[in-house]
Amino acid sequence: MPFVNISLLKGKSREHRRAIADGVHEALVETYDVPRDDRFQVIKDYDPEELIYDEQYLDIHRSPDVVFIHITASATRDLTQKKALFKAIADRLGVDPGLRPQDVQVIIASNERADWSFGNGVATYAV
Amino acid sequence: MPFVNISLLKGKSREHRRAIADGVHEALVETYDVPRDDRFQVIKDYDPEELIYDEQYLDIHRSPDVVFIHITASATRDLTQKKALFKAIADRLGVDPGLRPQDVQVIIASNERADWSFGNGVATYAV
Amino acid sequence: MPFVNISLLKGKSREHRRAIADGVHEALVETYDVPRDDRFQVIKDYDPEELIYDEQYLDIHRSPDVVFIHITASATRDLTQKKALFKAIADRLGVDPGLRPQDVQVIIASNERADWSFGNGVATYAV
Repeated sequence: MPFVNISLLKGKSREHRRAIADGVHEALVETYDVPRDDRFQVIKDYDPEELIYDEQYLDIHRSPDVVFIHITASATRDLTQKKALFKAIADRLGVDPGLRPQDVQVIIASNERADWSFGNGVATYAV
Repeated sequence: MPFVNISLLKGKSREHRRAIADGVHEALVETYDVPRDDRFQVIKDYDPEELIYDEQYLDIHRSPDVVFIHITASATRDLTQKKALFKAIADRLGVDPGLRPQDVQVIIASNERADWSFGNGVATYAV
Repeated sequence: MPFVNISLLKGKSREHRRAIADGVHEALVETYDVPRDDRFQVIKDYDPEELIYDEQYLDIHRSPDVVFIHITASATRDLTQKKALFKAIADRLGVDPGLRPQDVQVIIASNERADWSFGNGVATYAV
């Protein structure tokens, strides 16, 4: 159900980027009622002039390892689940690829179950 | 009114990508109350490690031809129209560029009519 | 709080792109209750076949300078603020980099305050 867009700066290894994508997905499975095989992600790196971020908004000190994780998912989760998701993502990315928690930014965008077609021309969750 | 983001894997011809963009737009005109000249689309191709997708979630078998179509549009359409849109997109992309219906993924994100400015610094649909 | 995605055609200078990003952010600060240091933006340029736009939808004549500004922000602003934002963006981009108002397209996507984590694994605005 989720569609995930991950944005970060260029210069990281393929393994670094894969670890981020893997960790985000594992966190979704763990906390956000996402089946393990429900995985759809775009991970894109940018030149420094293309990805502009404040280095200390809210006194959170961000480094060039900063990553922006934009998650579109159905609006069926509550605040408890959102909090668990944010924590699980930061925890997992802290383990691999070893990101500081200050560098993990997450934005959730919610839609409805009727808004998804996973193929075959049907509203997958509304049939 | 819609703003459409299309994501697919690298290696397709310019004609293939244009056929996808054209087919999506025709489906929006046919089923989703979109004027023919209300067309705004970004179509971007990715390396395999940048576009991660499950090859059989929900027993739908996806190939490297898979395409993700993310549509932002005002929340004025009902479920009947969404179903018609999903079917029309899959049907049209099946004709040209000849995609299998399993490879056509659609995600709708809804906003409000007041959320659009099509130029001139005004809220186009709220004036 | 806002996460801003800016899309335009290739061929512009780094200064041109930076002026757009700066102007959008200043407009958000001026009209949309955004702190000055709450700045997170992706600005990406595209080949002409990747960025498809109608050149005269609604009799607004768009040129290859056209820019699409997609803003995700919490749904705490009213129509008056949205109108002010649209005007402020067009005005500022008219001054620098000198865009025609017809070339400034803005799309707002709203989420909730609970949908943001600006680091440290917490729901920043819901704690």
